[in-house]
Amino acid sequence: MSDTLPIAATPAPPYYAVIFTSTRTEGDQGYGAMSDQMLKLAVARPGFLGVESAREGVGITVSYWRDLESIRLWKRDAEHLAAQRLGREAWYEQYAVRIALVERAYGFERGAGYGA
Amino acid sequence: MSDTLPIAATPAPPYYAVIFTSTRTEGDQGYGAMSDQMLKLAVARPGFLGVESAREGVGITVSYWRDLESIRLWKRDAEHLAAQRLGREAWYEQYAVRIALVERAYGFERGAGYGA
Repeated sequence: MSDTLPIAATPAPPYYAVIFTSTRTEGDQGYGAMSDQMLKLAVARPGFLGVESAREGVGITVSYWRDLESIRLWKRDAEHLAAQRLGREAWYEQYAVRIALVERAYGFERGAGYGA
Repeated sequence: MSDTLPIAATPAPPYYAVIFTSTRTEGDQGYGAMSDQMLKLAVARPGFLGVESAREGVGITVSYWRDLESIRLWKRDAEHLAAQRLGREAWYEQYAVRIALVERAYGFERGAGYGA
């Protein structure tokens, strides 16, 4: 996540979120390098708006997208398809993918205050 | 998160997700205890469907709810309002809250396979 801010600076809603929650198998098995590569590819996709990611027992990656078409095309990207297959073969014990329409968003920044 | 599974066992969509992303200030300042208490209260609310949470630099907590009304009532809960205020006064450097309608969900479980 080195080239992205911890909290994504998304535009005003509506836009889409892909909530990817996972638990890993033991050992790296090439996961770290592929994960970095997938992030690099996703960030460069049309319609990509931002990403937030943390792993602490469970891994949660939320990526934000302009519309469902951007998500559909990224899901079908050839390198991403190969990574998805390896995820099921080797890296993940379990995962859930949820595709959600962000209807409302607000936030807080210390020193800046509370607002939209 | 000790009394919940790492990946929430949510029903079939549609339902709502509240994506809460945050960065913390230094030190605990009562955050851990309040966080545990808020989880306990949220789990017991009507319309609560599940929660997933991880912190690694950035903290991501995704809670799942039956409908917007459940979210609205939980946001206005007196104890939760006090926690929100302390969050802005002491615990969070920055946060974002996104309220999103989950339209589609699928998953994978090792040994069980890939499916809805």
